[in-house]
Amino acid sequence: MNATPIIKSPHLILASASKSRSRILSAVGISHEIIPANIDEARVKVKLIETDSDPATVAKTLAEMKAQKISYLHSNSLVIGADQVLYYDDEMLNKPINIQDAKEHLNKLSGRNHTLLVSTCIFLNGNILWQFTDKANMEMRLLSESYIDWYINEIKEQVCETLGAYRIEGLGAQLFSSIEGDFFSILGLPLLPLLKELRNHGVISA
Amino acid sequence: MNATPIIKSPHLILASASKSRSRILSAVGISHEIIPANIDEARVKVKLIETDSDPATVAKTLAEMKAQKISYLHSNSLVIGADQVLYYDDEMLNKPINIQDAKEHLNKLSGRNHTLLVSTCIFLNGNILWQFTDKANMEMRLLSESYIDWYINEIKEQVCETLGAYRIEGLGAQLFSSIEGDFFSILGLPLLPLLKELRNHGVISA
Repeated sequence: MNATPIIKSPHLILASASKSRSRILSAVGISHEIIPANIDEARVKVKLIETDSDPATVAKTLAEMKAQKISYLHSNSLVIGADQVLYYDDEMLNKPINIQDAKEHLNKLSGRNHTLLVSTCIFLNGNILWQFTDKANMEMRLLSESYIDWYINEIKEQVCETLGAYRIEGLGAQLFSSIEGDFFSILGLPLLPLLKELRNHGVISA
Repeated sequence: MNATPIIKSPHLILASASKSRSRILSAVGISHEIIPANIDEARVKVKLIETDSDPATVAKTLAEMKAQKISYLHSNSLVIGADQVLYYDDEMLNKPINIQDAKEHLNKLSGRNHTLLVSTCIFLNGNILWQFTDKANMEMRLLSESYIDWYINEIKEQVCETLGAYRIEGLGAQLFSSIEGDFFSILGLPLLPLLKELRNHGVISA
């Protein structure tokens, strides 16, 4: 996790408060500044859903809104935006707001498949340079109430850090019978396509 | 990484010296004892290849040999064995023995696809209970000599910890243009199928 930064130029900003996204970039030696966009995501999501936007449009729009807002405020910096959307059937789940909410999330996801969409983009001076959306199919085991209680008691407030109330890189892997998709995308950032784009722009060494 | 162990019974042994495999088990709360089998893997591999064994047979045989050896020595313990094989065309690569060897590995893998096979099994009292083999397709970017030198200088002796001389969970992700396969399998252990089997045997809570 302590690789020498291989950023060449220019300044790179991650317009996201996600610790997981920042950890992914740091692990591959990409130094970056974290400047969360602090937009009212829940409100934007409601509006998008009211206008019949599909989950991919929601993820893409939110990622772009975050990156664009920060990009306008920081000229000549490349700004990475990203957003994840979790859905099954007609329902989308937002990040749990507390432990009780996380418990309800796990009860909803238990014994069924859900989809995790991740969208990422790069902005420069308010203009979009690149956008990419990836998808993972997640199959959660049928979990008993007592198992969910045990799980939440183990990971505690970390249960509120992800949309689905799981930490797939830790104990959360225990919740799943099958996972199909890119691990980095599940953690919040489609890393390999993003690295390719940063190389294309000469931001990191090739 | 500090989840409470959820092992119920019996004693679980990992017959592998791989730090990565032990880390994966610990991260999902599986307490285990590490007892490497210390068999002469290179010699066994040569013999298997001489008898025209395919890569999957090599991985499966080595995983089983390790688990069986430890299983005979530790009765009534479940013993996990595992082995990885890296190959492309007709060539298999063993773990680099030193920095120079790692450099040759990366030169061979640069700009081409290779396959990572991982085989795992569970033994009890010398008998096999379960076996599973998984496969990942890895596409490495075309790397310059100077990039390989820079990379090896960054991760140093860690470059000798994996078959392909990369640490995919860290800076090694920078080497790839595409990865298709389960992340845990690439790290050395097909985790979800293994957890399912441990649950089926009542070893961990369901």
